[in-house]
Amino acid sequence: MTRELIAVDWGTSSLRAARIAADGTVLEERSSQRGILSVPAGVFPAVLQETCGDWLSRDGALCLVSGMAGSKQGWREAPYCACPAGFGEVARSLAWIEPQRIAIVPGLSCEHGGVPDVMRGEEVQVFGAMDLLGEGDGLFILPGTHSKWVDVQGGRVRSFATFMTGEIFALLRQHSILSRTLPAEDDPLDEAAFLRGVWHAAHAGSLLRAAFSARTLALFDRLTPASQPSYLSGLVIGEELRARSPAPQRAVLIGSEALTTRYALALRSLGCEPRALGAQATWRGLWALARTLDLP
Amino acid sequence: MTRELIAVDWGTSSLRAARIAADGTVLEERSSQRGILSVPAGVFPAVLQETCGDWLSRDGALCLVSGMAGSKQGWREAPYCACPAGFGEVARSLAWIEPQRIAIVPGLSCEHGGVPDVMRGEEVQVFGAMDLLGEGDGLFILPGTHSKWVDVQGGRVRSFATFMTGEIFALLRQHSILSRTLPAEDDPLDEAAFLRGVWHAAHAGSLLRAAFSARTLALFDRLTPASQPSYLSGLVIGEELRARSPAPQRAVLIGSEALTTRYALALRSLGCEPRALGAQATWRGLWALARTLDLP
Repeated sequence: MTRELIAVDWGTSSLRAARIAADGTVLEERSSQRGILSVPAGVFPAVLQETCGDWLSRDGALCLVSGMAGSKQGWREAPYCACPAGFGEVARSLAWIEPQRIAIVPGLSCEHGGVPDVMRGEEVQVFGAMDLLGEGDGLFILPGTHSKWVDVQGGRVRSFATFMTGEIFALLRQHSILSRTLPAEDDPLDEAAFLRGVWHAAHAGSLLRAAFSARTLALFDRLTPASQPSYLSGLVIGEELRARSPAPQRAVLIGSEALTTRYALALRSLGCEPRALGAQATWRGLWALARTLDLP
Repeated sequence: MTRELIAVDWGTSSLRAARIAADGTVLEERSSQRGILSVPAGVFPAVLQETCGDWLSRDGALCLVSGMAGSKQGWREAPYCACPAGFGEVARSLAWIEPQRIAIVPGLSCEHGGVPDVMRGEEVQVFGAMDLLGEGDGLFILPGTHSKWVDVQGGRVRSFATFMTGEIFALLRQHSILSRTLPAEDDPLDEAAFLRGVWHAAHAGSLLRAAFSARTLALFDRLTPASQPSYLSGLVIGEELRARSPAPQRAVLIGSEALTTRYALALRSLGCEPRALGAQATWRGLWALARTLDLP
């Protein structure tokens, strides 16, 4: 494909877009707060036009949209593509808004013992990471509000699992009894307290149990108030790793630097040597997907 | 002891009191919303007077107060009594407000791998249950905001563990992404959905993972909105039981009927045959404690 790509990552609370040259070079980036929750039905085309109408009007530009824009509450529902799924399956399942010009990338679904799991947007990051690293096999971890652990084999997502890690951390941090003794502002990460939390989570057997230690250690003056947020972060991230123990030997982390730094610390303490990638995975994933399309 | 006992259970958000005859008969009960969080320092004696001044003025009445009234934020701090602890240890550690007349019952503490655990008030319920059942050995489970699993040997609490089950259920129910699709009101318990949650928690390995199934099952129309609160309750209670698996063969549940019913259902599905006791355990525990005191 020799056309320019307009890559759009349209999530719940924000919209990011990039103009990407045929050779993969990111030429320009933009973002706005017009996440899908702020966009009424029918207004999605106008918001896209507003954000990058000038790009869309360029000759032969192709626009691929990933993320929650493809959900029931989004622009148009793009039914989940069932795992195992690679570039080919996802390309065939694109939901075209305008033929050969604007399409929504579907999310992925998989099943474990009769219980479905889903993702929307993260699959594009995994595809991008595979392309950037030239790696078609392995474990990809995407930390976040809802962390995803993605098993890739032969360039296809074989299965994945979701952990509500970031969300439950925020609930404990802001609304639980623990929040009463926590400082309002997070200091820079206290690595020792963080790793102490990871260690305790690995041994407590459940976050329901481990979380109470943030209270009792403070009660007995064995944890300073300033260290409590880092300790709690270690407990919650450590719980995610405990659930997937033994720790993997290798993994690729994809996400913000703030998060991948914490996960890398925790994983290293368990004997895993992860690599980390940031936001570039999304643009690379959409570009790599565009290349696989049979378009003029 | 031949004196009347005024038993007071003074918690965070409420105060309950009972007048108990020397033979253990509960003669009268009262309650108010004056939990310790609503009582400024120095005003505790006045609130007690207001609630049961007429009882206190009776000849020779003894008053024992259990619960958070003995915490740093309460009437007077009664330092935790270290486990193992039975009637004797607790009786010797009473914090007397007025000699031989009004005392605060201390809570218990224990340690697991350098991490302390604490309770205030539940120890009295366990003592009451032991006395009511004539049982000095076994596992006592007190479901609640912070559930306690208490191991008793030879009439003494040997150790215990806290699970933030009720609190994390409330956080998920009210503040998480799951709350968006949950009905505002809880229908009566849907037992099948509840047990499905218990089963899934046992297999998911962590609540961080299991909780997301409440969302995906709903998304794929495999769980009706009306069944979701029961399913989520099963997930969270099931997580507490998973953390202590294999399930105990026998256990005594102490708490409100609404909660012990759910725990009994979950425990039975795992092969445990629990007995259940309600609020009478508190009065019986304070009365049994009073009998062990060397008082005129």
